[in-house]
Amino acid sequence: MVLELKVPHGTDLAALQPVLPFFIAYILSFIYLGIYWNNHHHMLHTVKNVSGGILWANLHLLFWLSLVPFSTGWMAENHFAPLTLTLYGVNLLMAAISYFILQRMILRLHGSESLLKKAIGNDLKGKASPILYITAIILSYFDISQWAAGGIYVLVALIWLVPDKRIEKTIYGSNKE
Amino acid sequence: MVLELKVPHGTDLAALQPVLPFFIAYILSFIYLGIYWNNHHHMLHTVKNVSGGILWANLHLLFWLSLVPFSTGWMAENHFAPLTLTLYGVNLLMAAISYFILQRMILRLHGSESLLKKAIGNDLKGKASPILYITAIILSYFDISQWAAGGIYVLVALIWLVPDKRIEKTIYGSNKE
Amino acid sequence: MVLELKVPHGTDLAALQPVLPFFIAYILSFIYLGIYWNNHHHMLHTVKNVSGGILWANLHLLFWLSLVPFSTGWMAENHFAPLTLTLYGVNLLMAAISYFILQRMILRLHGSESLLKKAIGNDLKGKASPILYITAIILSYFDISQWAAGGIYVLVALIWLVPDKRIEKTIYGSNKE
Amino acid sequence: MVLELKVPHGTDLAALQPVLPFFIAYILSFIYLGIYWNNHHHMLHTVKNVSGGILWANLHLLFWLSLVPFSTGWMAENHFAPLTLTLYGVNLLMAAISYFILQRMILRLHGSESLLKKAIGNDLKGKASPILYITAIILSYFDISQWAAGGIYVLVALIWLVPDKRIEKTIYGSNKE
Repeated sequence: MVLELKVPHGTDLAALQPVLPFFIAYILSFIYLGIYWNNHHHMLHTVKNVSGGILWANLHLLFWLSLVPFSTGWMAENHFAPLTLTLYGVNLLMAAISYFILQRMILRLHGSESLLKKAIGNDLKGKASPILYITAIILSYFDISQWAAGGIYVLVALIWLVPDKRIEKTIYGSNKE
Repeated sequence: MVLELKVPHGTDLAALQPVLPFFIAYILSFIYLGIYWNNHHHMLHTVKNVSGGILWANLHLLFWLSLVPFSTGWMAENHFAPLTLTLYGVNLLMAAISYFILQRMILRLHGSESLLKKAIGNDLKGKASPILYITAIILSYFDISQWAAGGIYVLVALIWLVPDKRIEKTIYGSNKE
Repeated sequence: MVLELKVPHGTDLAALQPVLPFFIAYILSFIYLGIYWNNHHHMLHTVKNVSGGILWANLHLLFWLSLVPFSTGWMAENHFAPLTLTLYGVNLLMAAISYFILQRMILRLHGSESLLKKAIGNDLKGKASPILYITAIILSYFDISQWAAGGIYVLVALIWLVPDKRIEKTIYGSNKE
Repeated sequence: MVLELKVPHGTDLAALQPVLPFFIAYILSFIYLGIYWNNHHHMLHTVKNVSGGILWANLHLLFWLSLVPFSTGWMAENHFAPLTLTLYGVNLLMAAISYFILQRMILRLHGSESLLKKAIGNDLKGKASPILYITAIILSYFDISQWAAGGIYVLVALIWLVPDKRIEKTIYGSNKE
């Protein structure tokens, strides 16, 4: 799950210009992977039992996240061409779905009274994200607007970046030492 | 143990086509490495003592798993040519053998009454896999059928993908909090 | 966060010569990343609660550290050309700022009576480093002196290399087994 | 600390031939890194306090180990040419010295009555290895015998591969659950 930036030739600021799309895509994907890592950390904090199913669901999530450097690289190398935006969106959508599955499996094992259940609540972000991804996939695939598609990916990242104070309190409120 | 997908040039779906064999091989090897990671996690969960021998057996397993990206890449780059399928099979066979050795060393140290012993049972999957690998190695080396060899690798992956409910219960049944 | 050295062609000592700037930059960045890893380890040792904010601050630090191989590579490939020294300095400066933010968030959560607070003290190194980085950024950007800029990066590394006996005692003094 | 094997072009056994020196060097370095990982694991098992000095000594060891893929790659790419064997030996020698320093620092912090002290004993292997490395460095640098130099590296690896039953017993003998 390593994103890489290729070192440019040349020593002036102009030499850095071709790196710009990679840098923008790098930041976006770094935030996405960071969101998953962060929420994943929060979620696993509540897990008491690990079943084989959970391990597989976890691996499934890891699979889609492991493809992010590939779809990010393709998108950056082609300056956010329509189809590359579509693939990026499909990758994010699949990651969101696999995260949802993992979350469901953990909930099923720990019951509706669990900490995680209370922390997630109605899971508005979790429900809105796939709809936004699908919108961006359609917008880019039918070449309606690259900017709108790209803007949606930035928007979803920003939605998740805002920390959910309530969740934090539910999970960490009781284990202060 | 990182599998890599090279970013293609071009921005249409046709540009993604050369990536297809890599993607297929990537999924297959990801599942195999995931199976090992998963079972390894289960097995080490039962280990209470670590001897030098176990560390070496573990390293031996890691050696063969670390070669998987190489044999996967060679296979994908040559569109599953016979000999590349053979090498892939040899790699999987050696990983299976080294896993078997590691398992034996852990069992010897913990006794036949251990959790692991009960969890493994008659170890049908563990015994069938090497035979299937050897079959695929022969089928591909003598160029009898690439499809049959490839099919066997998919089959073994599927056999292991099905979680073994009984094992889970034996190992995790008693430590519910 | 992996720094890489490319293998040279040729088998005599002359073949190793082009590797020299990479090796020098490699050592410098290895020390910087080591300092962060080391201090990070010390700091997290004192953390009892993890908030979402801390996780994000940690990720922010990781972002800038993850760019170090890029800025190191650019600098080495161009034999420490002025602008590459500037970018390296900006990278180090941003890492220092993000470390400072992380430190502040941990302090705020744990109170002024915490171990970390006592261990940091007046944080002279933490305050001097950004000023030195900015000096080197100016010296290199306006092409005043590459040697002075590079020398400052070495100097800051050396300042941090000297272990702070007092910190160690504060943090580890009480948990001897 | 990742060793990499480049995927060859071509699908017959002849295509694998250029990979052979890389594969041999890969195995040798994998064993060396494995020995360090293994012994490192044993040693840290006995550590109760971590000082800043130990963290630095650990980082110093990591530095030389992180160069092993580079010196291995140079050696393999040039079919074990004399000077590449010299560099490989210097790398191993520096790793051995940094390991020795780390070991000394841990011993000093834990006293001569510590488990580690008893486990190491007279440390015959630790004393013989640098002498053998220096011999190989001389043999290769003055182009006396590549085979002898290479043979010494294999010999040292084999010496360390043999597990030291006594050490194991000292360290793990008392914490059987």
